[in-house]
Amino acid sequence: MSSSDIIEIRPVAVVKRESANENERDPTIVSKIVFSEEMTDGLTGIEDFSHIHVIFWMHQVNDSDKTLIHPGGPSDEPVGIFATRAPIHPNPIGQTVVEVVKRDKNTLWVRGLDAIDDTPVLDIKPYPDWGDGRFKIVQDFRVPNWLRELIEE
Amino acid sequence: MSSSDIIEIRPVAVVKRESANENERDPTIVSKIVFSEEMTDGLTGIEDFSHIHVIFWMHQVNDSDKTLIHPGGPSDEPVGIFATRAPIHPNPIGQTVVEVVKRDKNTLWVRGLDAIDDTPVLDIKPYPDWGDGRFKIVQDFRVPNWLRELIEE
Repeated sequence: MSSSDIIEIRPVAVVKRESANENERDPTIVSKIVFSEEMTDGLTGIEDFSHIHVIFWMHQVNDSDKTLIHPGGPSDEPVGIFATRAPIHPNPIGQTVVEVVKRDKNTLWVRGLDAIDDTPVLDIKPYPDWGDGRFKIVQDFRVPNWLRELIEE
Repeated sequence: MSSSDIIEIRPVAVVKRESANENERDPTIVSKIVFSEEMTDGLTGIEDFSHIHVIFWMHQVNDSDKTLIHPGGPSDEPVGIFATRAPIHPNPIGQTVVEVVKRDKNTLWVRGLDAIDDTPVLDIKPYPDWGDGRFKIVQDFRVPNWLRELIEE
């Protein structure tokens, strides 16, 4: 397989909000993830995790050839889109850690999902990652100065 | 868009290992992520992050209708595939936090990527996530008993 081959992905679920007018960036709002019915068994035990990763497809983000953007904050230097959390990556994939609120059959309620109504969900995964007999949470990390300035503002 | 619509994704990069015989689960091994040349500018500044998320497509994982599996460890109870890190999710998407070693143009060297040679990469994102003026790292989390037993073994 070469990197130019197209991959076809069928979403496993779709995001449903109470109202299409909700501010999806409000981290306190609960939204629903409605899975295909045949995936109901696959959700068994998911509610025993307090948090999950949600990987979704930002279907309303327009294609863009942009490779450099200004990250905001005091920095004047443009940075590469891969070094930012801007949604206009070549593939508009979202990846967010959310809180699991409850589940009923094929519907999962989560808090903190920054995805708009009708967003297709590609996959979910338990949080945190684990392997080699331990949880894998990176606590010791380095970020660029422009981001450090944004966070400290 | 309904959740049954197929999404077509063109990979942005491909994983290249020194040898196809490397154990991709060895967290000390460095592998290359080779991006399409037109994405080189998009990588500007990525090496100022010590860690990134890599989202990839496990192209060698066979389709499976399995929804329940035994997670291993002392537990006898099967759990849903979405509650595990098994690769046989309906969409075989991998998501791993790796250490950035260096970059040269469109090639990124990373440590700890558990993806085999030639794996298509869908996206990369800086680690950690941020928003609302802070880094978003969940430290206070709950996991199922079967996982707690696996980790404590």
